[in-house]
Amino acid sequence: MSTTPSAGALPVEGPLAIVCGGGSLPFAVAEAAKQRGRSVVLLALRGSADMQRVAGYRHHWVAATQIGAMCRLARREGCRDLVFIGGIVRPTFRDLRPDIYTLPLLRRLIRLLRGGDSYLLSGVASMFEQQGFRVLGAHDVAPQILMPEGPVGRYRPNETGQGDIAQGLAFLRTIGPFDVGQAVVVAGRRVLAVEAAEGTDNMLARLAELRRSGRIRAVGGVLVKAPTPGQDRRLDLPTIGPHTIEGAARAELDGLAVVAGSSIVAEPERTAALADRAKLFVLGVRSEAPER
Amino acid sequence: MSTTPSAGALPVEGPLAIVCGGGSLPFAVAEAAKQRGRSVVLLALRGSADMQRVAGYRHHWVAATQIGAMCRLARREGCRDLVFIGGIVRPTFRDLRPDIYTLPLLRRLIRLLRGGDSYLLSGVASMFEQQGFRVLGAHDVAPQILMPEGPVGRYRPNETGQGDIAQGLAFLRTIGPFDVGQAVVVAGRRVLAVEAAEGTDNMLARLAELRRSGRIRAVGGVLVKAPTPGQDRRLDLPTIGPHTIEGAARAELDGLAVVAGSSIVAEPERTAALADRAKLFVLGVRSEAPER
Repeated sequence: MSTTPSAGALPVEGPLAIVCGGGSLPFAVAEAAKQRGRSVVLLALRGSADMQRVAGYRHHWVAATQIGAMCRLARREGCRDLVFIGGIVRPTFRDLRPDIYTLPLLRRLIRLLRGGDSYLLSGVASMFEQQGFRVLGAHDVAPQILMPEGPVGRYRPNETGQGDIAQGLAFLRTIGPFDVGQAVVVAGRRVLAVEAAEGTDNMLARLAELRRSGRIRAVGGVLVKAPTPGQDRRLDLPTIGPHTIEGAARAELDGLAVVAGSSIVAEPERTAALADRAKLFVLGVRSEAPER
Repeated sequence: MSTTPSAGALPVEGPLAIVCGGGSLPFAVAEAAKQRGRSVVLLALRGSADMQRVAGYRHHWVAATQIGAMCRLARREGCRDLVFIGGIVRPTFRDLRPDIYTLPLLRRLIRLLRGGDSYLLSGVASMFEQQGFRVLGAHDVAPQILMPEGPVGRYRPNETGQGDIAQGLAFLRTIGPFDVGQAVVVAGRRVLAVEAAEGTDNMLARLAELRRSGRIRAVGGVLVKAPTPGQDRRLDLPTIGPHTIEGAARAELDGLAVVAGSSIVAEPERTAALADRAKLFVLGVRSEAPER
């Protein structure tokens, strides 16, 4: 997949197919693509995508495992380019109710479901590529959603915050090979919470609860997010947005640090405004982690 | 502290002071010491120790940061040996309301509060040692509470479970240097949850909730617990007990694996009986992790 040319070098051809998971990000990408003069078709994932918002676009509902059907629909719509975006509930073997178009791919899909998230997503992407599609990153079609380097909003980390950011990045690099999660909370150099299957919002809610109940009494702290080393940047980038700011404020953190250029900011203006109001810093940082 | 001779080599002298945190374990240790013919005095930590159960023993209530007062009380009771046992809410700078006996130790205590749990506990232990006390492990005075190698109860892991145990131990070894947590849940080689400040019970409750809400749909899994590499075995060993089995059952896990000889089983008979009823395996395993 490293041979896939970057989107900028290629002509825009036909409508863009957006494999649309949960949250607001798929619609931010759809709008950005439309602003750049490209029409879009949503392949909306049942159980994940926002039904009301999907209805505002040309769309088809599919199950996450119906890869054959997605290829057929995208082809019928004249799409050559595909983007995966938004949260999805990870499917399991029990969810495999494949349509006839997916049956030939079934054995491979089962093998992919045994691995970590990055492995599964990379495998699914290459299945689409073998069917003749070009899999792009959301940042290729909507580069304005990428986190810039430096502060977003008015606040900046103090020395303690900087130490916590360094510790968080070091921790995430260490667990990278395990394909676990992309986020950690550090306060005074202590790791207070590690994200795995629960997701960032859930981890922040847990911290807020632990603080309310007095189970942790260290003050402040930083949420640090970074892509895992083996992660395909087209498929799953760490994401922050208004939700993340609200969660971090409730968890009484001092701020957020995410890897610049390798993270997505959903609704950047609103994110910055909320961060300023909550007196949180939001910082785009460099990471020494190997990137793809 | 590695020069402290093991308890077995030393004569039993006077009553044993038990610095008594939360949970049932301090009382298991107290009973075990009494069975071996030794009287006990509890230094019960306010906000952590079980008030009703403390009342059944000779005791004094103290704050976790009142190290000077604890030394004075233990000395007055004729104790030379001390054991730390049970969960405590980690104190912070805001909790430092030191009595006059602790004032001389204050600067050092403040420095210790900046570090991870192992660092804090080791430092506190050496403060007691400098005051002439001998700090023993709960396993020294009550070896019957240590996890044996092999299965506790009737069930054993299948091949998937064995793979998950290996993956969990590898993960815990990797994060060891960060002094984070002692537990992880792995299912089908995927790390589903990592324990940090929230504790094991909390982590298992989160998994149960994620499964109920369909956010993770991988089935089964294993809770793996191991001491962190730098951990002083006298001070803080990974612990399982009836609570852990109930939590693991609610999280729909297949079983538990803990490092034999370096983990404590609170109420072993009840733990085994509950595991059998829930059809969970409980396995004492070797770890290649360096131990102290």
